[in-house]
Amino acid sequence: MDYLELTVLGSNSAIPLVNRHPTSQFLTLANRHFLIDCGEGTQVQLRKNNIGFGRINHILISHLHGDHFFGLVPLLTSLHLLDRQREMHIYAPAELKKVIQTILSASATWLKFPLNFHPLNMKEKESIFEDEKIKVHSFPLQHKLDCCGFLFEEKARPRHIKKSALTQYNIPVSELKKIKQGEDWINEEGTRIANEALTDPADEPLSYAYCTDTLPVENLRDFFSNPSLLYHEATFAEEHASRAAETTHSTARQAAGMALKVNAQNLIIGHFSVRYKDLTPLLEEAREIFPTTELAREGHKFIIKHKKQELELG
Amino acid sequence: MDYLELTVLGSNSAIPLVNRHPTSQFLTLANRHFLIDCGEGTQVQLRKNNIGFGRINHILISHLHGDHFFGLVPLLTSLHLLDRQREMHIYAPAELKKVIQTILSASATWLKFPLNFHPLNMKEKESIFEDEKIKVHSFPLQHKLDCCGFLFEEKARPRHIKKSALTQYNIPVSELKKIKQGEDWINEEGTRIANEALTDPADEPLSYAYCTDTLPVENLRDFFSNPSLLYHEATFAEEHASRAAETTHSTARQAAGMALKVNAQNLIIGHFSVRYKDLTPLLEEAREIFPTTELAREGHKFIIKHKKQELELG
Repeated sequence: MDYLELTVLGSNSAIPLVNRHPTSQFLTLANRHFLIDCGEGTQVQLRKNNIGFGRINHILISHLHGDHFFGLVPLLTSLHLLDRQREMHIYAPAELKKVIQTILSASATWLKFPLNFHPLNMKEKESIFEDEKIKVHSFPLQHKLDCCGFLFEEKARPRHIKKSALTQYNIPVSELKKIKQGEDWINEEGTRIANEALTDPADEPLSYAYCTDTLPVENLRDFFSNPSLLYHEATFAEEHASRAAETTHSTARQAAGMALKVNAQNLIIGHFSVRYKDLTPLLEEAREIFPTTELAREGHKFIIKHKKQELELG
Repeated sequence: MDYLELTVLGSNSAIPLVNRHPTSQFLTLANRHFLIDCGEGTQVQLRKNNIGFGRINHILISHLHGDHFFGLVPLLTSLHLLDRQREMHIYAPAELKKVIQTILSASATWLKFPLNFHPLNMKEKESIFEDEKIKVHSFPLQHKLDCCGFLFEEKARPRHIKKSALTQYNIPVSELKKIKQGEDWINEEGTRIANEALTDPADEPLSYAYCTDTLPVENLRDFFSNPSLLYHEATFAEEHASRAAETTHSTARQAAGMALKVNAQNLIIGHFSVRYKDLTPLLEEAREIFPTTELAREGHKFIIKHKKQELELG
């Protein structure tokens, strides 16, 4: 799946309801998978959405309010019971390590797989994962409890080989990778063929930024800009702006303002307060300011492909 | 609700499935309410079954395998967010106290209501609750991890005043309570009227015994007998008896044998292994030995009224 796909597993704030679970999302970017936050019931939400547990090797926890991590130890326990052997990476506030150990020890569970715990830097932007295709950073948000956002970015993508070049030149397969990376090609007769004659420009890399449980962060642009997709919490509507400030959350209007500020291409809002049965007013409020906004509805897959860079529903 | 009503909130063992949650039950006996075990997702199961959180003042945890307690701290956190003030009683293995404290402290949650933690005696039968209408005991089961069963018993019930006595004698309301308790009545002229002339016998008290996560306990009858309703785990079918022994669980046939041994009036089996998609074979296996057996199906209310002492589906 060489594009961006986000499955919303939970979209509610704090108290879970029958059809609105606490926060969790499953992200696929450049064929890499990430479970972001893990509220109570996430493992069942994964099952409901046919997401195989085997695809999960990296779990990121933004902060330690229960609605963002109560499902983690239950998920780890199930993986253990299912005989998982492969290492699991957890990126989370440092205190979570003790919590995991205390719970597992009380339940006499000695995990069959290694747990690689990466404590987050809650004060500064920091790289937390990188490979040849993507990089992931955490960055500080502004919440009652220390809280991180996460930025997932594809690295520069390969240029496209022109079909005409394949017919015109006799390019060996072994040379393709370098040519896709932008190098010129010197053919068998020693003639240099300029890369522009062989390739079309690469697609723009895709990126996803996740900002939950936060006041609007004035300097958010210091951490990233131009994301293909921004998730920003919108716990409240603007009419409850004072309640949002008091509880260090954002309104739908503020979330849309953040999308403008960082020049996002698309916005998803979520982490809805239980007080809103109908979420349409929050969506309308955000769209007034930022038209390409969607609600984080559970079970929805949001897809962005390279060619269009537009949000589609899967 | 002056009878026995049991709502099954979760009936699966270990790993939760989309339609089979980990163990939890809500019991009402003589208008007293008890939440028994509290696997992941119990708070949402309570909502689905329209059981108001306000009715929960006593939570009993049999043992510390996660599928029996992972939903507890999430439930307590929600009660806190819902501004609960009333004391909550937790009856559980002693180690759970530290687990609760560690999780709440990491999430910076200082409960608005008092938590009264009662550590269970994991080795001997012990009284854990008593008031004028009922008494509750814990007793040791045989599992890989220390595990308790629970016995809920109504005390002797009041005798029924005969309608004929009310017409024949001029009994003052103030005397009724004593007469219902079996006392004779001395009327205004000083004549003693024998209690048998005034009342019919009381109903048999109802009782419920809960035995989860255990091998068949040879001396179970030392702890109780003649329960109106026995819940006994039946993780496996008899064909997997060796797996049951290995994991310190019981088969459906063994559960039925236990019901015979303690002379139960009715049996519910549960805590099913994920390997059984269709549970009918387990039910049939148990019914061969103990005909009045039912499956612990989620969302079912099992009711026993005093007159009939028979299991009805609510």
